Amino acid sequence: VNIAASSQDQNFSYIPERSAWKLSPDAAYVHITGNETIGGIEYHWIPEVSVPLVADVSSNFLSKPVDVSKYALIYGGAQKNVGGAGLTIVILRDDLAALTPPKTPAMLSYAVQAGDRSMFNTPPTYAIYIAGLTFQWLKRQGGLSAMAERNLAKAKLLYDYLDQSAFFLSPARKSDRSLMNVTFTLKNPEFDADFLKGAKDRGMIELKGHRSVGGMRASIYNAMPVEGIERLVSYLKDYETAHA
Amino acid sequence: VNIAASSQDQNFSYIPERSAWKLSPDAAYVHITGNETIGGIEYHWIPEVSVPLVADVSSNFLSKPVDVSKYALIYGGAQKNVGGAGLTIVILRDDLAALTPPKTPAMLSYAVQAGDRSMFNTPPTYAIYIAGLTFQWLKRQGGLSAMAERNLAKAKLLYDYLDQSAFFLSPARKSDRSLMNVTFTLKNPEFDADFLKGAKDRGMIELKGHRSVGGMRASIYNAMPVEGIERLVSYLKDYETAHA
Repeated sequence: VNIAASSQDQNFSYIPERSAWKLSPDAAYVHITGNETIGGIEYHWIPEVSVPLVADVSSNFLSKPVDVSKYALIYGGAQKNVGGAGLTIVILRDDLAALTPPKTPAMLSYAVQAGDRSMFNTPPTYAIYIAGLTFQWLKRQGGLSAMAERNLAKAKLLYDYLDQSAFFLSPARKSDRSLMNVTFTLKNPEFDADFLKGAKDRGMIELKGHRSVGGMRASIYNAMPVEGIERLVSYLKDYETAHA
Repeated sequence: VNIAASSQDQNFSYIPERSAWKLSPDAAYVHITGNETIGGIEYHWIPEVSVPLVADVSSNFLSKPVDVSKYALIYGGAQKNVGGAGLTIVILRDDLAALTPPKTPAMLSYAVQAGDRSMFNTPPTYAIYIAGLTFQWLKRQGGLSAMAERNLAKAKLLYDYLDQSAFFLSPARKSDRSLMNVTFTLKNPEFDADFLKGAKDRGMIELKGHRSVGGMRASIYNAMPVEGIERLVSYLKDYETAHA
């Protein structure tokens, strides 16, 4: 594995520009993660590369339209925007299934799975059923373009407040901010526990950031209505007024 | 793979005696399937072998007590007696995880999965939740001993009727009959379609046998109450009286 680019120097808070990537000329593929839930950063562009592009889209699939023709393979767990954990979505270019290495276990072989229309084994039926209901719901919402607009508006509400706040900070680089996972910190981390307790009292849970970075994280996937964001911003305002 | 024993000579309707097995002395393990859903046969004994014994228990796990100490590894899909498809139960002897061959994909490595307490990946949470509810239900029923008694009584109702019938046949050898999947045929298969239609009219579906053997198959897993068997036997009687 060649790590072609990293933002470790700034705590994984941005996506290095394409021009800074040090790609191996003989790479079999380039792998990116469309949205990174810990730092709260997201690709808002598709990198141009001369080898197959593979993307983990677990945490932003179905949050916006995706031009699948730009990718050799995209894959993602269902548990963010699709349905229940235990189902994985894979979309791959037809010719790639044939590249399955010898001795690949059948369950992990795209050739076998594609050949059996994803039913080589008994598939996770309930998770597929729920995914079907989600797809129907997405259509009723106006499809992925409408979801993209809604997700942008939701995230903007929150980032706009954070950007003008003197009490809260938003660590992710503006151009790379995730629309799914909004990370923020309190300037004074001594308030962290109290802030989380107050949030819970107002019915807002799971706001604690990943243990590797600390701070806060608001996960606002498709299922989060704008009213949820409004309630959070309202709490941020109240909390800042009371403690700033 | 060495097929140590087979009942292909009689359409897979029995389990060859242990004394007839031709085992490889240097085998890594011996594999059996605890219950076979197509022919409708089931192990009511545990074979003695000198190498690790591995059993697929997908279709009779939790139908009766199991002495796990007799096996090196048992495994099964959850979708019969446990819960939703997409969850697999594996119980293996501690020392076997270390035998994972090099280059085994992490998702298929028992060493990795055991090391991470089955949470190497995001596990199929809903299927696990449903399995937990099933376990609680099993305890309320009196546990696996009570389930074994109930399953025996359920199957006996059906087999007893089939055994005295001159119209229906039960192809599986009596000593190997499955308590989970009761296979039977009509002496005159010309009645098959009519029989299935009549069953459907009485609210009994999925009675058609596997396409590879034809005939009928009543799957009477833990979730099937004795009333379901009584209704089926009542229909068999009525049908036989009307058509014999």
